[in-house]
Amino acid sequence: MGTDMERAGTDIAADQIARPAPVPLRELSRTVRRSELGPRIGEAVLETADGERLVRRFLHTPEVVAIVAVDGDDLLLIREYRAAVGAPVVQLPMGKVPAGHAPLDQAKAELAEEVGVEAARWTGLARLYSCPGWMDQVLHLFGASQLTALSRRADSGDPDDIEEQGIEVVRVRLDRFPAEVASGRIQDARTIAGVYTAAAAGFLDLGRPADGEAKH
Amino acid sequence: MGTDMERAGTDIAADQIARPAPVPLRELSRTVRRSELGPRIGEAVLETADGERLVRRFLHTPEVVAIVAVDGDDLLLIREYRAAVGAPVVQLPMGKVPAGHAPLDQAKAELAEEVGVEAARWTGLARLYSCPGWMDQVLHLFGASQLTALSRRADSGDPDDIEEQGIEVVRVRLDRFPAEVASGRIQDARTIAGVYTAAAAGFLDLGRPADGEAKH
Repeated sequence: MGTDMERAGTDIAADQIARPAPVPLRELSRTVRRSELGPRIGEAVLETADGERLVRRFLHTPEVVAIVAVDGDDLLLIREYRAAVGAPVVQLPMGKVPAGHAPLDQAKAELAEEVGVEAARWTGLARLYSCPGWMDQVLHLFGASQLTALSRRADSGDPDDIEEQGIEVVRVRLDRFPAEVASGRIQDARTIAGVYTAAAAGFLDLGRPADGEAKH
Repeated sequence: MGTDMERAGTDIAADQIARPAPVPLRELSRTVRRSELGPRIGEAVLETADGERLVRRFLHTPEVVAIVAVDGDDLLLIREYRAAVGAPVVQLPMGKVPAGHAPLDQAKAELAEEVGVEAARWTGLARLYSCPGWMDQVLHLFGASQLTALSRRADSGDPDDIEEQGIEVVRVRLDRFPAEVASGRIQDARTIAGVYTAAAAGFLDLGRPADGEAKH
């Protein structure tokens, strides 16, 4: 099947991403300040080719980790209340990386705290941007497999994290994940991106038949 | 293949999402204020079952639209400089929905401004959360097909939007999209989520062979 119109745009290619920014903007400075309302706000001052200065502000967050944990034919997700949207959200286990910590160590801690399992096998999958039009957050995506249940969930050590105390673990069969997305029962963009990125990287197979349906 | 451990967690089910929040938190109030640094900060005051009050702050944004535009075997993406991450990002065409506007109308406007095409066919695909741990943003995902190139890109009318003026249109063959994600050339979580949600909903087929490779 051909295209519906004359070709507009260029093909994506390895060197396209490495090329300079599409507009010649030079970053003069980057600062972060805590706003009086809590969250930190980053500010980038840019200079155009004409010497004009622009200011762009965004939410500054720590880097985060998200874990795609696979147990047999199941994906282990969590269900947690999210005040920003005023509703519980089904999502990957995720957490902030404290300054000076390695993302992989934090991924192990989050999996123990939020899901109550540890993994014998860890795979670095991707480095994503959560929402680059609005925030600087970098998300480190890991795959976790060969899981063992802990006797109880690890304690995050933060008594104020009421939401984390109420986390429920939710299992989704891998081959059911696309249907859960299509149905709107999974609405979190980072979770959808994380699971499909894991599939694209060959870490899991969303078409894999479940027990008793194996095609050999 | 069985699971590696005793089953932890519950299976996802339609009624699980409709159930009450996993922690009994009642929202007492929700307010939005402009911080002195620019972005708006939302604040939710919650009450626990014990009568304790909690405050949760988050970035408040307008709702946004994102468009999965398919031209034959190609997906039309854009490449735009994003100051928050200090780099150009390959992503879906996206934009804010001004107060009082319908998301579909804004999707049509963004496709004309950012890609320079109009679509004869529009499909509502999903309502996603961009990043619900940090912001309240709701993303309306649309599919656009039966495209026609405009003689030139529509003007957003905002002379300060230097980044939008520098947008490049990038074509990705549908069956190449997973490889572009796996390679790290596409890193934007909302874009990955949006394209795979469109596939899960049956709007496009990421395994579809391109011209000349059709298997009939």
